[in-house]
Amino acid sequence: MTDAHSAEAEPDDDSEAEASAVELDFGETGRIPAIAQDADTGEVLMLAYVTPEAVEQTRETGLAHYYSRSREELWQKGATSGHVQHVREVRADCDGDALLYLVEQEGGACHTGYESCFHRTLDGEVVGEKVFDPDDVYE
Amino acid sequence: MTDAHSAEAEPDDDSEAEASAVELDFGETGRIPAIAQDADTGEVLMLAYVTPEAVEQTRETGLAHYYSRSREELWQKGATSGHVQHVREVRADCDGDALLYLVEQEGGACHTGYESCFHRTLDGEVVGEKVFDPDDVYE
Repeated sequence: MTDAHSAEAEPDDDSEAEASAVELDFGETGRIPAIAQDADTGEVLMLAYVTPEAVEQTRETGLAHYYSRSREELWQKGATSGHVQHVREVRADCDGDALLYLVEQEGGACHTGYESCFHRTLDGEVVGEKVFDPDDVYE
Repeated sequence: MTDAHSAEAEPDDDSEAEASAVELDFGETGRIPAIAQDADTGEVLMLAYVTPEAVEQTRETGLAHYYSRSREELWQKGATSGHVQHVREVRADCDGDALLYLVEQEGGACHTGYESCFHRTLDGEVVGEKVFDPDDVYE
């Protein structure tokens, strides 16, 4: 069996080889939003921003990294709280200007103790689940 | 039965009345990101931006509205394609600077024909489902 024949017999490998990396568009600000979603439950956990460096660190370590606009620095989610996000997959949107992190969240994503930062409706009704006491986690 | 007594007998109404609307922070740009998530499947469909006017239109009509940064105008998702999003609930994040639309999506969310704009991994592998032919929808 020749290599060419072997390749023909494995179309899945072919199509994967043909897939080229998505070109991301970080625009004028140099950062794009990244959504973290629980890979198992589908719950949307948080939205933060990423720079090229944050994406690179996320891929290299397998732990979600973001860029803090207020502190102007790269940060690893959970570095202080221990509530890290193990990134199972990173998806890009059609325009390459937003990312979706599919994660396994340790603890809760929100610094207020809730599983998700999106734990309230616009009217202020709490619809999310509290999973830890922030006083126990942040000093 | 007095009105006061009636109110006491309905604690659910009381707690809802106590919840106050989340104050949104539209920052310097006047817009914040809004994530659209399929309310039934949990699939993250798209990310776009909203102004106060877009949020207001969304709540008034029950159909997802966004603000186009490139066209600099308010738009209703599906106005051209018919692929509207019926908004079941709007959630705000802890900082009030991102929204989550829980929607019932007609057709597909992505203009490329996929159910979700997040249909590719960073490496370009297609992981999403194509649900319509864009040539049939957009002229």
